[in-house]
Amino acid sequence: MEFKAQSIADFLGGTVEGDANATVTDVAKIEEGKPGTLAFLSNPKYFKYLYETNASIVIVNQDMELEAQVKATLIRVPDAYKAFASLLELYQQAKGSKTGIENPSFIDPTAQVGNDVYVGAFAYLGKNVRIGNHVKIYPQVYIGDNTTIADDTVLFPGVKIYENTKIGQACIIHAGAVIGADGFGFAPTEDGTYKKIPQVGNVILEDWVEIGANTTIDCATMGSTIVRKGTKIDNLVQIAHNVEIGENTVMASQTGIAGSTKVGSNCMFGGQVGVAGHITIGDHVNLGAMSGVSNSIKSNKTVLGAPAMDIARAAKVFAIYRNLPQLREQVIEMGKQLAQIKTKLEE
Amino acid sequence: MEFKAQSIADFLGGTVEGDANATVTDVAKIEEGKPGTLAFLSNPKYFKYLYETNASIVIVNQDMELEAQVKATLIRVPDAYKAFASLLELYQQAKGSKTGIENPSFIDPTAQVGNDVYVGAFAYLGKNVRIGNHVKIYPQVYIGDNTTIADDTVLFPGVKIYENTKIGQACIIHAGAVIGADGFGFAPTEDGTYKKIPQVGNVILEDWVEIGANTTIDCATMGSTIVRKGTKIDNLVQIAHNVEIGENTVMASQTGIAGSTKVGSNCMFGGQVGVAGHITIGDHVNLGAMSGVSNSIKSNKTVLGAPAMDIARAAKVFAIYRNLPQLREQVIEMGKQLAQIKTKLEE
Amino acid sequence: MEFKAQSIADFLGGTVEGDANATVTDVAKIEEGKPGTLAFLSNPKYFKYLYETNASIVIVNQDMELEAQVKATLIRVPDAYKAFASLLELYQQAKGSKTGIENPSFIDPTAQVGNDVYVGAFAYLGKNVRIGNHVKIYPQVYIGDNTTIADDTVLFPGVKIYENTKIGQACIIHAGAVIGADGFGFAPTEDGTYKKIPQVGNVILEDWVEIGANTTIDCATMGSTIVRKGTKIDNLVQIAHNVEIGENTVMASQTGIAGSTKVGSNCMFGGQVGVAGHITIGDHVNLGAMSGVSNSIKSNKTVLGAPAMDIARAAKVFAIYRNLPQLREQVIEMGKQLAQIKTKLEE
Repeated sequence: MEFKAQSIADFLGGTVEGDANATVTDVAKIEEGKPGTLAFLSNPKYFKYLYETNASIVIVNQDMELEAQVKATLIRVPDAYKAFASLLELYQQAKGSKTGIENPSFIDPTAQVGNDVYVGAFAYLGKNVRIGNHVKIYPQVYIGDNTTIADDTVLFPGVKIYENTKIGQACIIHAGAVIGADGFGFAPTEDGTYKKIPQVGNVILEDWVEIGANTTIDCATMGSTIVRKGTKIDNLVQIAHNVEIGENTVMASQTGIAGSTKVGSNCMFGGQVGVAGHITIGDHVNLGAMSGVSNSIKSNKTVLGAPAMDIARAAKVFAIYRNLPQLREQVIEMGKQLAQIKTKLEE
Repeated sequence: MEFKAQSIADFLGGTVEGDANATVTDVAKIEEGKPGTLAFLSNPKYFKYLYETNASIVIVNQDMELEAQVKATLIRVPDAYKAFASLLELYQQAKGSKTGIENPSFIDPTAQVGNDVYVGAFAYLGKNVRIGNHVKIYPQVYIGDNTTIADDTVLFPGVKIYENTKIGQACIIHAGAVIGADGFGFAPTEDGTYKKIPQVGNVILEDWVEIGANTTIDCATMGSTIVRKGTKIDNLVQIAHNVEIGENTVMASQTGIAGSTKVGSNCMFGGQVGVAGHITIGDHVNLGAMSGVSNSIKSNKTVLGAPAMDIARAAKVFAIYRNLPQLREQVIEMGKQLAQIKTKLEE
Repeated sequence: MEFKAQSIADFLGGTVEGDANATVTDVAKIEEGKPGTLAFLSNPKYFKYLYETNASIVIVNQDMELEAQVKATLIRVPDAYKAFASLLELYQQAKGSKTGIENPSFIDPTAQVGNDVYVGAFAYLGKNVRIGNHVKIYPQVYIGDNTTIADDTVLFPGVKIYENTKIGQACIIHAGAVIGADGFGFAPTEDGTYKKIPQVGNVILEDWVEIGANTTIDCATMGSTIVRKGTKIDNLVQIAHNVEIGENTVMASQTGIAGSTKVGSNCMFGGQVGVAGHITIGDHVNLGAMSGVSNSIKSNKTVLGAPAMDIARAAKVFAIYRNLPQLREQVIEMGKQLAQIKTKLEE
């Protein structure tokens, strides 16, 4: 798609300064702008790039004063950041504008599909599946029996949803994510083998949840594994059976939460965090990347390290840890001094 | 599915106490019981929940004495836990009762498929594939050429099996798992580029192996990567080329085993464990979550930490590590005292 | 496939010693050789296995002198390792010899496909997709709109490529890998919820890149996430938005690189490494397994540990860390001695 400066300015209610016929086909950061791209400038730290950028069009604040000549066509608007963000959202929506049922797809006769839905080729909808309006189901998605998916949710290619899952409105699930596989539960027997504990619960994702690519969320042994509304989970994360995660929590890549643990609302997890099973993490808890958490954490704490510690303590511990050779040298040196003193005293 | 108290009691050989027409459609833990659910009570710690639960039916031990009035209908049986477990298994079997060949699926003319097999839509069976009886192949599964799968095995949606793989009886492989991708082997060349080392071996999964969602098990460079019978592997685990894992070992999520390492039987791995290549882990070894193992471990050890240590040592090390600031303060304080003493002695 | 010793010798320009009609159907390491397998012997450390092996044929160096009788048929060549490697490559090429378009597959009418291409059943090629010559697209692969894939690239089953991705020549992408899913970007709002930041960039994989099974590489927020030529990435790795990785870097399994970080050329990453966002790793940097990197690293460094340290320091730190109980004992003992000395001095 190609857009002219004048059309963009008209859409944004802005004014063009420079070539109104300049065209763009892509967006870029101002410091990486190439011919044919649209950038924006809002943060004063980046003002210098305005005079260097090769972007064809730059959106700037209405009141910005130029200090030198600019190659790019400018579009002046009241708030450059907001204007650019609204264009990006438009672009994103355009990306996701697929609709209709592609062939071949497999829709069980008992499945019910809402209005204005996209079902890509090779997608599979099992028995009694219920799909809301404006849902987008990309190719090669699997939706098991009795699963319900509310309005405006997007399932990217190859997502696998086991049976009985409940997915809310406006969720986004990225390619390869697996929702509802069996929890990891086995009972040891006397001969050393393991007997599978049936996993008959399900997964509930509430509204506005986003799940990253190849992330896995297991079904509950009984009852539900729950991710509450507004929570965002990155790629390759593991959520075990019977875990509950509160609202508006963000969890970075490769984190793992073991079974039956409860995580609060508005928490932030760095990448590669590990959380043990059967514990409780409060609300507004921040966990630094690679933290290892084996005990419950109260609300409003920030922790780091494995084993996880309060961040202030962790900073001190890390500094000493890195300098352990010096600490040891000091101890050895003091030992020598002590020996000398003892010798002296015994003389 | 809806069941009446009387039908469940008849099936279990138990007796109904209360409303024999009470119905349930789901199961629940007694402390989470809602109307329409079936729970059980066996552990005395949970007795108090019997008088509070909203579950419609509770299975209890024959000889349990009530201390107050109970809302739920009771079913009395000799062993409440066993009775409940047998119902769960029945439920689980009912879940997996799919059969027949769905269309469109791709079955190479040279492939052989046993009796009473399920092949879901969009599943792919390559040349000379051999599938046993009662095997369930869910939609979008890929089975490469010359792969053999023995009786009663279940491959959930989107499982990808590379060619020449051998899978035993009664295995369960969860959605998105990849079995037999190339091992990670490259030979450095003089110009700094890498030359791929052909990976021409395969993967063997013996009987009763369970593999979690999105787990990856690479083929051997030559020979076989082997997972022996009864071993259970969780989600997002990485098993590299030429690894061998013994019988009845359980391995939690996000663990990684590097190339050519041998793991014994009846081991237990916590989550996010990392094991280096070309080492040997004995039998009955327990590895705590997030352990980092770079040396071989003898049988019957329990280790923890990165680098991994005997668990008793690890507990001490962790405690001191967390208190390093105090240890350092102590050393600094002792340094001051030493200086004072030296000054005194020199006076 | 079955091969006779004489045919292999003819192909390699070698000479047969023993039964020229000995046949093999598989390859093996000499120490694991079974009847019907072909092995090679080059490293003197393995000479002893020559007299024990059950392999039917062994390729050896022309000038090797026998010290005892050998069961296997020998093929003598100038360089046994090279000869064997050339056979393995032939074998590997034979494995990948699929061609033609299988049905049903979905190829959008606007997609362009080169010569001698394999498109497996249930593969999906979106609008304006461009596929070069000799490309192999296995079953159940998804290729989003406007994606281009250059000559000789192989996409294994179930690979998911989002729209606008650019993939170079002779790349190999293993099953379940997801290229181009949305970066993990959300702006916090005043009510505690998060607003998705549109991710409108793409992913560029240059030539000769290999990507492991179930690995995820996110698209850039704007611009491109880039993996440069010759770089090899193992299974279950996470590459976040706007990351750039240089040429000929190898990255082992379960490593994660956070957003906007730049990694240099010819680096080597062990498994389960974590790298923070917005930092720079130089060229020829080696990172030990499980390293946690939160600061930039200059070229030609080798680091280890979390937090990551120079490897020489890390070795010392690890040794002291493991012996912290002894260090603490020493400090306690010195404290007692100090107290005694002080008492003595005060007497």
